[in-house]
Amino acid sequence: MLHVAVVGASGYTGVELLRILHSHPQVAVTCVTSEQSAGKPVAELFPTLRNRYHQILENLEPVRIADRADFIFTALPHKAAMEVVPTFIRLGKRVVDLSADYRFHDPALYEAWYEPHLSPELLSRAVYGLPELRREKIAQADLVGNPGCYPTCSILGLAPLLKQGIIHPERIIVDAKSGASGAGRGAKVENLYCEVNDGFKAYAVGGVHRHLPEIEQELSLLAGQPLTISFTPHLVPMDRGILATIYADLKGSHSTTELLALYREFYCGEEFVRVLPEGSFPSTAYVKGSNCCDIGLTVDRRTGRVVIVAAIDNLVKGAAGQAVQNMNIMNGFPENQGLEGLALFP
Amino acid sequence: MLHVAVVGASGYTGVELLRILHSHPQVAVTCVTSEQSAGKPVAELFPTLRNRYHQILENLEPVRIADRADFIFTALPHKAAMEVVPTFIRLGKRVVDLSADYRFHDPALYEAWYEPHLSPELLSRAVYGLPELRREKIAQADLVGNPGCYPTCSILGLAPLLKQGIIHPERIIVDAKSGASGAGRGAKVENLYCEVNDGFKAYAVGGVHRHLPEIEQELSLLAGQPLTISFTPHLVPMDRGILATIYADLKGSHSTTELLALYREFYCGEEFVRVLPEGSFPSTAYVKGSNCCDIGLTVDRRTGRVVIVAAIDNLVKGAAGQAVQNMNIMNGFPENQGLEGLALFP
Amino acid sequence: MLHVAVVGASGYTGVELLRILHSHPQVAVTCVTSEQSAGKPVAELFPTLRNRYHQILENLEPVRIADRADFIFTALPHKAAMEVVPTFIRLGKRVVDLSADYRFHDPALYEAWYEPHLSPELLSRAVYGLPELRREKIAQADLVGNPGCYPTCSILGLAPLLKQGIIHPERIIVDAKSGASGAGRGAKVENLYCEVNDGFKAYAVGGVHRHLPEIEQELSLLAGQPLTISFTPHLVPMDRGILATIYADLKGSHSTTELLALYREFYCGEEFVRVLPEGSFPSTAYVKGSNCCDIGLTVDRRTGRVVIVAAIDNLVKGAAGQAVQNMNIMNGFPENQGLEGLALFP
Amino acid sequence: MLHVAVVGASGYTGVELLRILHSHPQVAVTCVTSEQSAGKPVAELFPTLRNRYHQILENLEPVRIADRADFIFTALPHKAAMEVVPTFIRLGKRVVDLSADYRFHDPALYEAWYEPHLSPELLSRAVYGLPELRREKIAQADLVGNPGCYPTCSILGLAPLLKQGIIHPERIIVDAKSGASGAGRGAKVENLYCEVNDGFKAYAVGGVHRHLPEIEQELSLLAGQPLTISFTPHLVPMDRGILATIYADLKGSHSTTELLALYREFYCGEEFVRVLPEGSFPSTAYVKGSNCCDIGLTVDRRTGRVVIVAAIDNLVKGAAGQAVQNMNIMNGFPENQGLEGLALFP
Repeated sequence: MLHVAVVGASGYTGVELLRILHSHPQVAVTCVTSEQSAGKPVAELFPTLRNRYHQILENLEPVRIADRADFIFTALPHKAAMEVVPTFIRLGKRVVDLSADYRFHDPALYEAWYEPHLSPELLSRAVYGLPELRREKIAQADLVGNPGCYPTCSILGLAPLLKQGIIHPERIIVDAKSGASGAGRGAKVENLYCEVNDGFKAYAVGGVHRHLPEIEQELSLLAGQPLTISFTPHLVPMDRGILATIYADLKGSHSTTELLALYREFYCGEEFVRVLPEGSFPSTAYVKGSNCCDIGLTVDRRTGRVVIVAAIDNLVKGAAGQAVQNMNIMNGFPENQGLEGLALFP
Repeated sequence: MLHVAVVGASGYTGVELLRILHSHPQVAVTCVTSEQSAGKPVAELFPTLRNRYHQILENLEPVRIADRADFIFTALPHKAAMEVVPTFIRLGKRVVDLSADYRFHDPALYEAWYEPHLSPELLSRAVYGLPELRREKIAQADLVGNPGCYPTCSILGLAPLLKQGIIHPERIIVDAKSGASGAGRGAKVENLYCEVNDGFKAYAVGGVHRHLPEIEQELSLLAGQPLTISFTPHLVPMDRGILATIYADLKGSHSTTELLALYREFYCGEEFVRVLPEGSFPSTAYVKGSNCCDIGLTVDRRTGRVVIVAAIDNLVKGAAGQAVQNMNIMNGFPENQGLEGLALFP
Repeated sequence: MLHVAVVGASGYTGVELLRILHSHPQVAVTCVTSEQSAGKPVAELFPTLRNRYHQILENLEPVRIADRADFIFTALPHKAAMEVVPTFIRLGKRVVDLSADYRFHDPALYEAWYEPHLSPELLSRAVYGLPELRREKIAQADLVGNPGCYPTCSILGLAPLLKQGIIHPERIIVDAKSGASGAGRGAKVENLYCEVNDGFKAYAVGGVHRHLPEIEQELSLLAGQPLTISFTPHLVPMDRGILATIYADLKGSHSTTELLALYREFYCGEEFVRVLPEGSFPSTAYVKGSNCCDIGLTVDRRTGRVVIVAAIDNLVKGAAGQAVQNMNIMNGFPENQGLEGLALFP
Repeated sequence: MLHVAVVGASGYTGVELLRILHSHPQVAVTCVTSEQSAGKPVAELFPTLRNRYHQILENLEPVRIADRADFIFTALPHKAAMEVVPTFIRLGKRVVDLSADYRFHDPALYEAWYEPHLSPELLSRAVYGLPELRREKIAQADLVGNPGCYPTCSILGLAPLLKQGIIHPERIIVDAKSGASGAGRGAKVENLYCEVNDGFKAYAVGGVHRHLPEIEQELSLLAGQPLTISFTPHLVPMDRGILATIYADLKGSHSTTELLALYREFYCGEEFVRVLPEGSFPSTAYVKGSNCCDIGLTVDRRTGRVVIVAAIDNLVKGAAGQAVQNMNIMNGFPENQGLEGLALFP
């Protein structure tokens, strides 16, 4: 049994990790932390865990945690993560960090969008944990930067086209929509039920969302050249799910059938990427609670553009599920262990 | 491996059965039927099943199904169920029927609320499948009438008090609230998104809902005397969940603490009934997707009444999950197999 | 033109007052206050008001407000209201207070459920502002305690029966359900979208909600004797609306038709109470945004109980709309001025 | 008083017309029709209208309707509209048609996307009823084709930029999102609550939605040259609202401030278009129930694109409200009569 700690268990990502790990046959959760709620049973914070998790939330003391856990999930805000991850690494633990702190290859880029990095030396060691693109490196890593939710969806949606050089890399538009759990569990007026329900809005319009540099970093690597995209996130009145509608200009003439075949080949053997049949497009409703990324696309001959639609559950493939997938790879477990659950519909 | 057929797989209960059975280690689904959608892949009807279920929906031909399955779930409308269940029984199959057709002990009662019964001789053989009350009989049965969603929640909420004779059996009020999936997947104007969203209503007011005689049948058995209750169902703008708020007059003086202790003892060892701590009350949000029934209660000294609040997921403990629990018992499998998944929150 | 101040304009009740007053032909809003957001345009806080309201939110300085307004709505938390209302009254202004501070006739009752009252001498002068029951007194009052949302719905639902002595006053159960706006606009985790959406729960179970004594006070007056009821509020995942399902034991034998006739007579001429036809029951969806209270009922002969279902929009008839109705009566305006808007459906 | 008929009153657009017309001081609704529900009181179909509308739904007999009404709203499906509109026009009535039948200037375009036109001779006489762009022609018209919901939002969002020639007309992307009322009130499985709630999806991907040619027709006129756009509609789990996120390539260098000033000038004096301050973007929540179109924009210097976000209530400015606005213009009434209601929030 792998002894696992969930550091930062009082947010939606934390409880989702606990939900998924509960059905993982090779994992025992030995430690859960929360600065705000230390001393309380985790099942009091999240009654879904009642009679299943009996742990008491602890304070975040890395050395004490490292005594009891060999594998650490850090589900902390950015900055808080890099304050403790180096200790875990130094103590020989393996870590999947769900914050933004270890997703960037270049400390300057991190600093430009966040703040000065506290452990820039770890960035070159950390692997960007998108298994479908970097499975081998993840298997060797002791530190994985778990991708953001918007980036996971956007990158999986674009990878085959960019890799094949089929689209103009400088003309990509990602119009993305997220459920409210993406905003976290902080007590803010703007996240109240009555502020979110029965309304729809854009936010961070004009290329100012922090997931943008992360997406561009990975897309640039795929394209083999630096690229700049338009990215607009939106808030959907639903709990879970991200759907990205992606517009790209085709370099030459390609049919929908041809591009779908390319996607199917690219993602051949991937259990968690489902390329949909021609004429079908994803809904977040069909991936809710599962680790799947569903992708559909069509060529619009009138405009010479391809429109790709990709959907994930932001808390699963966009966070906790992908983190467990990375843990499985890092430990040589079957990649789908604990992640076989089907989406909950309705 | 137990070969299982899901008869009537095009409704919400059917797809929920498929979701749950997918993670059951001792089950292989060999046959799925749907009169309306025969010939289509089941994953086309429910894209959550894509790449996981490859079956084609078949017509409902009992003999052909019995060739390939040893255990049958009938998830059909009432009447449609009793048209085929006798054939399955005659062919030596075991059946969990999710309709109302085998829930009543008295054919006259069924006829009064539904229509004349087509196989009244099977009613005495059928077991009302509430495992927490009839585990032993279920284990011996070849035909189980799987309880309705409202009845499951109401009966589990009241059983300890009635069994102990602590409340006046003639003064029970069950005010119950259900999510929209309880209304099924039929294309009716009243079930459209815009008719249900952001509104709340009562329906079947005044003791006319068909789950009422089912509840009264079981409560009467528990009380050891015939009883009549008030029951009002309501429609909540949410997908899943039933919450019953139950009012009963205490015969003598009892404290909340004492009654909670009674519940804890009554449900001791039951994995799927969680009696909450004093001062805590259930939410459907904490059982969504799980097979749990959460129960809280309090004594209101001002009125001499006890108020019990019970919550389930109507599609799981109220339908498909309980059906699988019954299947496990009937086959000697661990009772929680396939049902260990935690609730999805948020 | 009546010069009106809205004191406490940063909550949902405040913005609803502004929405309604905007279409009132005899009112000019001259002053809006908010301690938290003083200095900001009210339209920045509530973008629905853009280009329609140009006022800047002010601090709550009663004397300065009284200089510019003749009629005051105080939409403050309890206690905050009684800190300023006496000043307005002393300065000769008329006030509708939307808090609980002037709803009780007996200071001891207020103190038992809230805290010591700061101006108990005003309580006998204040009128409980339910126009359908106290229109004449309201017309004479300079201080009206605007009823709570649950009480409005519960009292209107029960008044005809209690007044006629048709039901046992000691056996009333009010099972009430409210949308999330009833919880206010405070930044609390429990009111976040992801905590409320797609779930349903009871709260303040066991007779501990502060609207209970208010309901009992008014029902006792109607019954002509003190009475005690069971009252359980619930939270519905919707923005607006309260629906109360009320159970009462009939003293003798009465038909549904007879009781509906009684209701129709009792509420004859009332524009804002709609007694539904036999067999019809209300939905909050049909009163959303309107000042109506819809009432349906049925006699359940099996149990000898009558079940009454009443629905209002908690922010309109349960708060701001009723406050404007009271203002109209106090000023001799047509009672429906500003309140003629139909419910928004869907 | 203008005598008005609402032809096709059983859909969401029909009931919204009735809601709005109810508060119009110069209108009397003399006739409401519905083929499906003829003979029923309209208030039985839509209980929001109870005690306010007493009309009985009639069959659609144009000559009989014309006897009692001088102004006709046809809220019918396409084709059904052009089967009766010519009769109304022949009888000297003025008509606002809310279907697609009189929105196109070229019958061939209508035929390409819909079917052969039954009264192509009326197309040149019909005015495309977007008041902000064609107020004078509407004032003279006896037949107005009321714009579609997506087109209203998209065209208002782009008009100033296209008119000024500031953007490349051939590189426009409109990513649009609509609430579920846009799908109408037909009883279809895909529009059920459980199919729509808590999910988000794209539909009609790849330039196949029928509102596309309508948008292109009007944008081409504004640009002074034919143009082709990418347009993807999405379904949001909410009742009302459309939000369009629009991407366009700037020809030269322009600041956000400059473009906002351009919009403010372009829409100067328009009561129903609100250009938001820099840094603010619309939400459908802030226009729900009102006739406003809110517009925000920003220049993204990294990509050289402008991103415009526009929001309307699809049933008001996108249908019934705009129809009443057109009626007001055609009759010389104040343009905002009946349309002054503020948005309902929350």
